[in-house]
Amino acid sequence: MMIQLALDRLTIEEALKLGELTEEHVDWLEVGTSLIKEYGMDSVRRMKERFPDKTLLADMKTIDNAKYEFELCFAAGADVVTVMGVSPLATVETCLQTAQSLGKKVMIDLLNTTPEQQQRLFQLASQDVYYCEHVSKDEQEVSGKRNDLAVASYAPDVKVAVAGGISMDSLPGLVVKQPEVVIIGSAITKAADPQGAAKAFKEGLQGG
Amino acid sequence: MMIQLALDRLTIEEALKLGELTEEHVDWLEVGTSLIKEYGMDSVRRMKERFPDKTLLADMKTIDNAKYEFELCFAAGADVVTVMGVSPLATVETCLQTAQSLGKKVMIDLLNTTPEQQQRLFQLASQDVYYCEHVSKDEQEVSGKRNDLAVASYAPDVKVAVAGGISMDSLPGLVVKQPEVVIIGSAITKAADPQGAAKAFKEGLQGG
Repeated sequence: MMIQLALDRLTIEEALKLGELTEEHVDWLEVGTSLIKEYGMDSVRRMKERFPDKTLLADMKTIDNAKYEFELCFAAGADVVTVMGVSPLATVETCLQTAQSLGKKVMIDLLNTTPEQQQRLFQLASQDVYYCEHVSKDEQEVSGKRNDLAVASYAPDVKVAVAGGISMDSLPGLVVKQPEVVIIGSAITKAADPQGAAKAFKEGLQGG
Repeated sequence: MMIQLALDRLTIEEALKLGELTEEHVDWLEVGTSLIKEYGMDSVRRMKERFPDKTLLADMKTIDNAKYEFELCFAAGADVVTVMGVSPLATVETCLQTAQSLGKKVMIDLLNTTPEQQQRLFQLASQDVYYCEHVSKDEQEVSGKRNDLAVASYAPDVKVAVAGGISMDSLPGLVVKQPEVVIIGSAITKAADPQGAAKAFKEGLQGG
């Protein structure tokens, strides 16, 4: 299991600083959607310059214009880029083709997908595709919903990532299902001691 | 009927130039998603500086983090911001509340929504909400699909915008249904004479 640190609602400088504090304990660094939309590809470029050896995920949340957006991100230094599972299938397929042609990876965000959409998306599974079970920020804030691995069943070759309000308390429940990637945001970035929080999550996952 | 000029897959300088060439003939200027993701809020700020009196739409395609993203856009000078209809309902509702609190407008993008989602979204209709029937770029490129106003029925108070591969040829078919906003992109931005193309669309709409 890997930890992906989601860097959101921050300036680029703050994101760089949090990356430095925690890089020893996290596996992937995520340039959050809010950074991309506020600062553009500069956010991805500067993170890659500072952390050239880390796997860098750009949370682009592509829902159209797949080739153009994915090429932008990969050119800026991203290793993994996200596409929304609620997109038209043509968009998801174009993302996979674009990533594959460049030897890069895709994360399909399952936010608000139906079981039928999920099953169709799982047919696209490969070594270079991750599926993210995602409880959105807005759902967390409005209803207090948290990630509880709600997808009923995955095919055996489907790589799973989980995101959405994950805390040290909810970690044991997630670890049981052995996701490939556990995405953690504010539980690290807003901790009084982000470095200590990242270390605790890493140890929590290794113990699990 | 108004014309919204969609500025996409361009540099900010190119977008400014196209805005200058066409502003006499278009009603709304759209900062496309690709500009936002490449250049961030700078793209919105610079367009508003140059065209302070135009209605400026930021095609943010929000699908989570609604309040944060909408406040970013409005602070940068946007008058209308888009949210995806395929988002969790909490996200759409937060967008509407955020816009309303600032006296701004929302466009709900119906891309890939189901009829059930559409009917639920139409219940949120007000003077300050537009509903965009949208055939995506990727669907156009993969299958040649064009906008044909596929939504079966709108409530009488629903304001409609249409987008997706609209050309002078497809205009008459759209005009019949009297949408509030006709969104035109490459048919103007990639025309040999963008100014002339914008003028022709304006005349086509007025004649319709």
